[in-house]
Amino acid sequence: MKRLSILGATGSIGTQTFDVIGTHPEEFSVVALSFGENIERALPYIRQYRPKLVSVKNDHIKERLRSLVPSSVEILSGIEGLVEVATHPDADMLINAVLGSIGLEPTLAAIEAGKTIGLANKETLVTAGHLVMERVKEKGVTLLPIDSEHSAIFQSMQGQDNKAISRLILTASGGSFRERSRDELKHVTVEDALKHPNWSMGAKITVDSATLMNKGLEVIEAHWLFNIPYEKIDTIIHKESIVHSLVEYHDKSVIAELGLPSMHVPIQYALSYPKRLELPQEKRLNLWELGALHFEKVDTKRFKCLDFAYQAGKLGGTAPAVLNAANEQAVEHFLNKRISFLQIEDLVERALNEHQMVSNPSLEDIREIDIRTRQQVNDWVKSHV
Amino acid sequence: MKRLSILGATGSIGTQTFDVIGTHPEEFSVVALSFGENIERALPYIRQYRPKLVSVKNDHIKERLRSLVPSSVEILSGIEGLVEVATHPDADMLINAVLGSIGLEPTLAAIEAGKTIGLANKETLVTAGHLVMERVKEKGVTLLPIDSEHSAIFQSMQGQDNKAISRLILTASGGSFRERSRDELKHVTVEDALKHPNWSMGAKITVDSATLMNKGLEVIEAHWLFNIPYEKIDTIIHKESIVHSLVEYHDKSVIAELGLPSMHVPIQYALSYPKRLELPQEKRLNLWELGALHFEKVDTKRFKCLDFAYQAGKLGGTAPAVLNAANEQAVEHFLNKRISFLQIEDLVERALNEHQMVSNPSLEDIREIDIRTRQQVNDWVKSHV
Repeated sequence: MKRLSILGATGSIGTQTFDVIGTHPEEFSVVALSFGENIERALPYIRQYRPKLVSVKNDHIKERLRSLVPSSVEILSGIEGLVEVATHPDADMLINAVLGSIGLEPTLAAIEAGKTIGLANKETLVTAGHLVMERVKEKGVTLLPIDSEHSAIFQSMQGQDNKAISRLILTASGGSFRERSRDELKHVTVEDALKHPNWSMGAKITVDSATLMNKGLEVIEAHWLFNIPYEKIDTIIHKESIVHSLVEYHDKSVIAELGLPSMHVPIQYALSYPKRLELPQEKRLNLWELGALHFEKVDTKRFKCLDFAYQAGKLGGTAPAVLNAANEQAVEHFLNKRISFLQIEDLVERALNEHQMVSNPSLEDIREIDIRTRQQVNDWVKSHV
Repeated sequence: MKRLSILGATGSIGTQTFDVIGTHPEEFSVVALSFGENIERALPYIRQYRPKLVSVKNDHIKERLRSLVPSSVEILSGIEGLVEVATHPDADMLINAVLGSIGLEPTLAAIEAGKTIGLANKETLVTAGHLVMERVKEKGVTLLPIDSEHSAIFQSMQGQDNKAISRLILTASGGSFRERSRDELKHVTVEDALKHPNWSMGAKITVDSATLMNKGLEVIEAHWLFNIPYEKIDTIIHKESIVHSLVEYHDKSVIAELGLPSMHVPIQYALSYPKRLELPQEKRLNLWELGALHFEKVDTKRFKCLDFAYQAGKLGGTAPAVLNAANEQAVEHFLNKRISFLQIEDLVERALNEHQMVSNPSLEDIREIDIRTRQQVNDWVKSHV
């Protein structure tokens, strides 16, 4: 039985992780988990899996939860709580499904503690890939990607001659505004942005998918995860989201992972790796039912964020952290209807342009630049309103 | 340096094998080869690679060749010659690219001699899969598939949890008559049949591709090669021939191998396995240039041979040998314009219906049934003319 700790238990990936665990109660137990504020969604998990430790957003939530769970369950809060969950001595594996740059510190702590890590938190590698992968290598820790694209690439690299990789090709659904012209993008609303055609995800990621920033962050993540230069990472629009990503080898052979859109598959693959467990409730892929799979080049004139991500990635240093912080803050302002859709990319571009790049930054440098960038973006938004 | 012996050096797969070897002269040498009658095509290979042993179809060809090559080159003929090439003591690996059921005996001899085998000869596994795989297992020999579909499946199984395979999906281009109705198929000519849309292959295989018998033989081959029951082997029409085949796992994840149609890739993969060498002259696959990949269900009412192959495969025993011999003979009659296209399947059906199945046949049983079936088909054709 694999003993898990789960960060971000009530989010989109967290709840789907519990779906997978629920399908294989003989394979997995949950020794620690964290969530933010959603006590209602967390309680059934706590009652069913009886973790030894639960961490929540703040002391207020902690107090409310205290009266609802047995006193044997330890409750912590804040970043310290996340780190305790991530490094719980009884856990074999951490699932880091927390959203945003708060996910970085618990990942680093889990690496130091020698845990196997299933990583759904993009920001860990985007903002501090150089630090994280150095420690992963030194500690000999297994880092397994959980999102669909990186899992597809990881699956397509198994048992292959990895020195022979000539290109990673990340597929992008194109998001909610795949068919919109640059002009039409000026007037799209939050409600429009949240209607993703293929995947059911959180609001932040759905907006990132519409700006293609999601793909940009994934490019940076792939760079670090698979140690592949940016010149060898390509993206392609594939509106059906059936081919989850591809790996090209230098003999021109391309290995890909396909399936109907479902996060359960990559989540379970990370949990059960290198074994594959059954997933009886998922639908099989019958390609004749789809008839055709479509592919087109990404239009980076229409969606600038992908190019910004490549630029930031190639620059390295603190640039990806700035990209990420500016984007996270800008999306929040968009979701709160303070800025328009295209202003997200304006704010990201401005943050990148005004930023003084620090090479080989420490965790402290990254934290500082993260806070400063968010503050800048907020100031720019305020001064416009 | 890997030392090769090559059966069928002047055929379609043979010459493409020499293309690959010519790209990597530092990686491969050729110690023995066989060809049928095409001295003109064979001579440059013999002169360049200086094999120690050459085997040809008969003594007449042997005499003609004798005066054209140095006396240090040993020349043999017939089935004895094929077996000597297949088991040459200096060879590490046999490439069996000979056409037809004549390929079986040299394969078995190479297994006994402990050679790694790259198998392009379909009939070896179709007619005697049970004997071949038993010996492969007992001798611990590596048997590598060379055709596009099985190579794709083999590549898609590397590093995966093979106990978790739920389905093999072989793609079929649909051949020259993909778009024809059953009625139109009555009047197609040899010239029509030989116009294959995607692949440049020999005449026999191109006709088999048009009847879908090629796919049927591949289903039987896949059954033996990968030890997968027929119920878990599926076929799908994919007219672009870009997805070369797929493997579905029981978590609903599907791994596939893709590429522009080229036999150089699977040939080289077998030669270099588990490494991948570069193939600089092959074009890369850019999916956006294609725009779309299409898939449809196979219509086994229109193309009956695929069903016959499943039936023969499930029956087992001598049934696949009968299927194969009847088809080989019928296709020859079609190519010689003695019968019509749809009579190929009539002859195969009749041979299967009239045959008394022998379970677990010996090599001798298979040889006998092969000869008897060909004789029967010839008699039926004669009595019709």
